[in-house]
Amino acid sequence: MTVRTAGVNDRIEKIREEMKKRGITMYIVPTSDFHESEYVGDYFKTRSYLTGFTGSAGTAVITLTQAGLWTDGRYFIQAKQQLKGSEVTLFRMGEEGVPTVEEFVRQNLRQGACLGFDGRVVNARAGETYEEIVTEKQGTIAANEDLAGIIWKDRPPFPKYPAFLLGEEYTGESTGNKLTRVREKMKENRAGVHILTSLYDIAWLFNIRGGDIAHVPVVMSFAAVTMEESFWFVHREVLDEEILRYCAQHRIIIKDYEDIYAYAENIPQDQKVLLDKRIVNYRICHSLKAEIIAKRNPTELMKAVKNQTEIRNIRNAHIKDGVAFTKFLYWLKNRIGKETISEMSASDYLERCRQEQELFSDLSFDTISAYGANAAMMHYAATTETNATLRPEGFLLVDSGGHYLDGSTDITRTISLGNLTREQKELFTAVCRCNLNLAAAKFLYGCRGTNLDILARGPLWSLGLDYKCGTGHGIGYFLNVHEGPNAFRWRRSAEPDGDCVLEEGMITTDEPGIYLEGSYGIRTENEILCRKAEKNEYGQFMEFEIITYAPIDLDAILPEEMTAKERGLLNEYHKMVYEKLSPCLEWEEREWLRRYTREI
Amino acid sequence: MTVRTAGVNDRIEKIREEMKKRGITMYIVPTSDFHESEYVGDYFKTRSYLTGFTGSAGTAVITLTQAGLWTDGRYFIQAKQQLKGSEVTLFRMGEEGVPTVEEFVRQNLRQGACLGFDGRVVNARAGETYEEIVTEKQGTIAANEDLAGIIWKDRPPFPKYPAFLLGEEYTGESTGNKLTRVREKMKENRAGVHILTSLYDIAWLFNIRGGDIAHVPVVMSFAAVTMEESFWFVHREVLDEEILRYCAQHRIIIKDYEDIYAYAENIPQDQKVLLDKRIVNYRICHSLKAEIIAKRNPTELMKAVKNQTEIRNIRNAHIKDGVAFTKFLYWLKNRIGKETISEMSASDYLERCRQEQELFSDLSFDTISAYGANAAMMHYAATTETNATLRPEGFLLVDSGGHYLDGSTDITRTISLGNLTREQKELFTAVCRCNLNLAAAKFLYGCRGTNLDILARGPLWSLGLDYKCGTGHGIGYFLNVHEGPNAFRWRRSAEPDGDCVLEEGMITTDEPGIYLEGSYGIRTENEILCRKAEKNEYGQFMEFEIITYAPIDLDAILPEEMTAKERGLLNEYHKMVYEKLSPCLEWEEREWLRRYTREI
Repeated sequence: MTVRTAGVNDRIEKIREEMKKRGITMYIVPTSDFHESEYVGDYFKTRSYLTGFTGSAGTAVITLTQAGLWTDGRYFIQAKQQLKGSEVTLFRMGEEGVPTVEEFVRQNLRQGACLGFDGRVVNARAGETYEEIVTEKQGTIAANEDLAGIIWKDRPPFPKYPAFLLGEEYTGESTGNKLTRVREKMKENRAGVHILTSLYDIAWLFNIRGGDIAHVPVVMSFAAVTMEESFWFVHREVLDEEILRYCAQHRIIIKDYEDIYAYAENIPQDQKVLLDKRIVNYRICHSLKAEIIAKRNPTELMKAVKNQTEIRNIRNAHIKDGVAFTKFLYWLKNRIGKETISEMSASDYLERCRQEQELFSDLSFDTISAYGANAAMMHYAATTETNATLRPEGFLLVDSGGHYLDGSTDITRTISLGNLTREQKELFTAVCRCNLNLAAAKFLYGCRGTNLDILARGPLWSLGLDYKCGTGHGIGYFLNVHEGPNAFRWRRSAEPDGDCVLEEGMITTDEPGIYLEGSYGIRTENEILCRKAEKNEYGQFMEFEIITYAPIDLDAILPEEMTAKERGLLNEYHKMVYEKLSPCLEWEEREWLRRYTREI
Repeated sequence: MTVRTAGVNDRIEKIREEMKKRGITMYIVPTSDFHESEYVGDYFKTRSYLTGFTGSAGTAVITLTQAGLWTDGRYFIQAKQQLKGSEVTLFRMGEEGVPTVEEFVRQNLRQGACLGFDGRVVNARAGETYEEIVTEKQGTIAANEDLAGIIWKDRPPFPKYPAFLLGEEYTGESTGNKLTRVREKMKENRAGVHILTSLYDIAWLFNIRGGDIAHVPVVMSFAAVTMEESFWFVHREVLDEEILRYCAQHRIIIKDYEDIYAYAENIPQDQKVLLDKRIVNYRICHSLKAEIIAKRNPTELMKAVKNQTEIRNIRNAHIKDGVAFTKFLYWLKNRIGKETISEMSASDYLERCRQEQELFSDLSFDTISAYGANAAMMHYAATTETNATLRPEGFLLVDSGGHYLDGSTDITRTISLGNLTREQKELFTAVCRCNLNLAAAKFLYGCRGTNLDILARGPLWSLGLDYKCGTGHGIGYFLNVHEGPNAFRWRRSAEPDGDCVLEEGMITTDEPGIYLEGSYGIRTENEILCRKAEKNEYGQFMEFEIITYAPIDLDAILPEEMTAKERGLLNEYHKMVYEKLSPCLEWEEREWLRRYTREI
């Protein structure tokens, strides 16, 4: 630990030297690649390199005398631990009295000072906010250099994983069709060009996948769509003959990855360019002379609404994933106390169970296998340093998922290893009720996640408890496991077009939890598919179908703490789990599953 | 009926004649006075005079060949009945495929045509929308004349009820203090003048009341606040010596009611004027040369958050109101089937029960006493024509309230008169569950009505049912019974600052219902006071206190359709009702109440 934080302070000092050389008094390092990706390849982990905090989300701000790290509630505990001993101050986002990054910059940037950041890793919206602050302060912006890149000697290489096509039997819609739909949206917005830099959206639109971000099968690239053709800015060496043919067929012209900036600069001034300023990087937007129509990418909503082929595939992927998870549960429940199992060996076993499944490609994210107090860290990742040995008591929280060619999964189960306290069972039961109540919602079309969130949160709020994160997120199809715009949360989005209406075909996670720092964590996560229920004089009713199949640990359930309706929901769910999974299990596993899906 | 609708067609023809004289091809008649009041005095009931539809909300649009009436879900059934036989087409607001008024104007106003309305009864926001449409069509606006006023020969007089002061023992805050708070908000917004035309806000700010709108004790007036003084534009004859002294003491300068337009015109161009364009009328805004800062009135939120004196008073008013209502229930339940009771004689009896209470001033709105199918009309008002005789079967829905000097009330009970069907009991029980579940909510500070609405609506949505209105509204203190900004509804407000956060001290109604056209209607309405619960590491929790005290009819409850928790909530509520009311009742009434508040 000491070595690492000493390293952090050194790096911050080196950055400060580079800042001083350039007259920069404040330098911002967000967590991003050039595409505003949520998870970033190792090449882009500058914030983590600089601060030592390895969580997936956070922003560092370095001044000549201060260093701060902003992260959200999922990571408060982890960040506190990882920053210990370094000079970096933790700013807990969303907590009372804690300034946002923008507020901090406004409060601390001196009159006439120079604010620095790499304009490729800051989105246009954020860049404009910084511009406003700098204008107020009559200062300047230095956005053309990656200072962290200069001091980072052993930086990993830029990701260039081979790209591959995903067939229509998996995607359910041709690129031609998708492009037609995008062009219709461009016409609606009177835009002649659409610049698309979201790696997920490009992968969806062109029906291609790659491996440029760990567990996110995307291809580092930019795209531009015009009415006649498309441009794909990509490293040519990742493309094979088949893709080149496919691109030619769909009038997709290949350009060099770095050419996006020149392309943007050369779009005629009288053109209108549709782009999402929350995603497209500051440097691209800054290069444009044409008028920007700042809107969400049309592909965002299109890819969130899964088509019938995708839904059929996803249901199938979930059965395989449920089989893998149930085999893991059976193994764990039978071996615990009899042999040495650690957080990491448990997650390794689970990974092997998944690997045995057809069409398996990768984990959909780093498995969270968190025992006891480790599970109180929402996004804990076991390391050789922290790897806890499981004892036959308390909870193991396992949040994991797989990418299959026929869909991605995201499931969390909290597993009793034995000897639970009454409190542990009460809270497990409460979390289970939260999960079931949301999934059982029936609602009129037009509802958003913010309307429904309280169904999940209510049972915990009644107890004066909460989880400091959303209740659920959309899921990509063999793409990023976190996908918008659908979500369950109670706080309203700051975006006027945020908090989208829940549409038929959207899949969202339902993952309430409770996290007691230093003690334990509980989360139960299923994916739920939004679909139509009856339409009558009151309107179109909507409902959810649970598409995650794995038992919720009855060893931790207190039936008397549930209403009859809730017990019915759990029984009904478990009945479905048994029906879906039992044909794919060995006899002993099946008998075990029968017991763990029994009626209560 | 024939006579009335014939009258309607005549009046519309007369308006058309006036329109033709002036070259106006489309004329809009909203439901408003010069203050965007929700209910309007008889003088202002031009829309009702023109169309025959008497509901409290609606807009008429007259073209040379068409006549349309827009109203919302509360009034669909009533409007359909009242428009029958006339040439007026009903436009059901919010229904699929039904254009809004603005859409209709855009679709039907011809190029270069003249759109007319009285600029004093159209708010500035709406006026601007019409301006935009007219600009698109290269047409003109005629906003200086009240055509309905020209043809309306027996128009009632302009309301000029004597104003009176409401003492600080009732208001809990001096006008001086309120003005200081308003001026702070003006400073925050860098405004030198604040124009306030909402009659409720003026009454609240100046601690005065009047009687210019039936059941809304306001004084027809405008106000302007500057940093040094205030101006009150009011008919001098409604003021007495005491008020004049009070005004002088608070530097409130009296001006003539009509002088507001000249005052607005003369505000220097370099001034900034804070006003709410959703409320201030088009003519005032049009008169201004100064810059407008368009924001909500600061008083809106201030008056919605009741102070400790108001809350103490309101709780007391509710006890008196509950006593009156319970006496009425006792009378009704004992007399039904034994003597002739009609909707109107029932509401008359209830009014007498209220009149006997201390500090009673008026009903807070026209009582809805609706038997059987009449109750399917959400805002039905019995007339001598429709007045139904109650039979010892089915439901009587009574939605009523009182203005007391110590607070206003709004309560609905649906009362079994006997022989209920299973379905009636099931739906009554569902509505009761909706009501109880919302009132029992515990939630983190920051939630809005939209976050909580599903708690009330969920039990009905589960059954594929809904009520086509919000779940609840804020309540004025001896003012308009409908008051913003707090409300419970699931659809998001179109306003970026709509759907306010629920604050401690806000009182909102909780009134789910079910309305089966042609059959019956059920609504159960309590008022609930938002207050703080515990504050802990998760944040500030909030909860509600039910402050309406009257039994919910156990004759219509199916206990087996409720969860144990819901039965507990009902029992707890009934226990409180008995405790609060029993000391104020006669022995026989008390024994009756004991039975009707028994545990189930």
